[in-house]
Amino acid sequence: MLHFNDFDNFSKSKIKFIKSLRLKKYRLQENSFILEGAKNVKLLLESDYEISMVVATASFLHEYTNLLLKRNIEIFQVNEKVLSSLGTFQENNAALAVATIPANKPFTIHKHQYGLVLDGISDPGNLGTIIRVADWYGLAGIICSNNTVERYNPKVLHASMGSFINTKVYYTDLPSYLAQTSLPIIGTFTKGENLHDPQTVWPSEGLIIIGNEAKGISETLMPYIQQKISIPNYGHAESLNAALATAIVSDNLIRVKVNSK
Amino acid sequence: MLHFNDFDNFSKSKIKFIKSLRLKKYRLQENSFILEGAKNVKLLLESDYEISMVVATASFLHEYTNLLLKRNIEIFQVNEKVLSSLGTFQENNAALAVATIPANKPFTIHKHQYGLVLDGISDPGNLGTIIRVADWYGLAGIICSNNTVERYNPKVLHASMGSFINTKVYYTDLPSYLAQTSLPIIGTFTKGENLHDPQTVWPSEGLIIIGNEAKGISETLMPYIQQKISIPNYGHAESLNAALATAIVSDNLIRVKVNSK
Repeated sequence: MLHFNDFDNFSKSKIKFIKSLRLKKYRLQENSFILEGAKNVKLLLESDYEISMVVATASFLHEYTNLLLKRNIEIFQVNEKVLSSLGTFQENNAALAVATIPANKPFTIHKHQYGLVLDGISDPGNLGTIIRVADWYGLAGIICSNNTVERYNPKVLHASMGSFINTKVYYTDLPSYLAQTSLPIIGTFTKGENLHDPQTVWPSEGLIIIGNEAKGISETLMPYIQQKISIPNYGHAESLNAALATAIVSDNLIRVKVNSK
Repeated sequence: MLHFNDFDNFSKSKIKFIKSLRLKKYRLQENSFILEGAKNVKLLLESDYEISMVVATASFLHEYTNLLLKRNIEIFQVNEKVLSSLGTFQENNAALAVATIPANKPFTIHKHQYGLVLDGISDPGNLGTIIRVADWYGLAGIICSNNTVERYNPKVLHASMGSFINTKVYYTDLPSYLAQTSLPIIGTFTKGENLHDPQTVWPSEGLIIIGNEAKGISETLMPYIQQKISIPNYGHAESLNAALATAIVSDNLIRVKVNSK
């Protein structure tokens, strides 16, 4: 049977702790993040993430009793109003979890895989959407510059639509990282080889660099780039946003690789 | 020489009028919308839009005097603080314009052109981004269901990054519209012909239907769809958002058309 505490035992200090995790400063200090919504919390319960607390409505606790029983989690039953007041969503009628931020560690990009490299993506919605795109195209993972927005920002988690669970993300100093890799490195630019040109040859694995929303790719990364590509523009818009560009580049590279098999 | 009013002549009723245009109800009542930011207002001044008022900082008025002199516009010079308080942007250090909403009218889709059909897109950020995508790929324009979010919503204008000026948008009853067109009609689905399959043949012009973010394409539109296409999924994400899907479908259709020439 599920053991949970009701709202009377939900102390002010716990409320303060949860609310504090909306801010990066406290997420880093506590090494914890919050995740909101029925689907997200369900996915988290099914994952390897270490979860310290779940605050949820009676119906959520009832529906996911089995998943909750498998773990040693502090559980609180609250109503929707209290739940919504704790997180960043306007409304939350299901659940909120507090989980441990896992160690930041590098991952391997195997043969025939692409990895994304994000050079200073600053908008949390963009990073979340890029994580979703990486998951859709089965990319190996994402290497972020240290000045890229933090992956456990609630807006990143929300925009990733659950894909943050499947997607490997590693923060590091990009010049050092690129200096030591043996993988081909492709950069996206406004002027480069046309992504639609059937004559263009891509490496069958490699790193794809996406630049900052306003400034593009940093000068310090230029020496490492072996191939410059660009999305052809057939109309008048000056640019595409970083998440759209990532999706279109990934779509073309994966298409060419799959069709050339 | 530019004749402008300073802030002392900027009455409370004008402030109230501008602020009211943040809401759809008043935009429809006044048949007017607001546009914020230096680049947007500059593009608007260069366009055919009818502009009734410009509220701007001294430096904006100085820089665009020539554009402003060409028109009969009520002009107010204010400081950045006042300007930011009028609109929806957190900060606006340049300009805000009030312009007339043009008549809602159909447009022609010529031979070898694609048009987008949006079936109930509800998120303003998505519509704005889709407008930017349509502009990037040089699509003929966008036909929106009457329940699609309003195109002069400030969030739509912001996300479109100026592309709303070049892009034709027409709101109508979709079943009636699709019933009378002779163009081929393509629908995007989770299950359909693979967009990456080189064997798939697309029409060289036509309408591409994008469904609502949560519900997809309405049942009432199904009888009009001649070809179902889908974006292949190479990973685990359950879906892509409507703007990403629009970009990827447009990118593939345009690529195939350009490369088959």
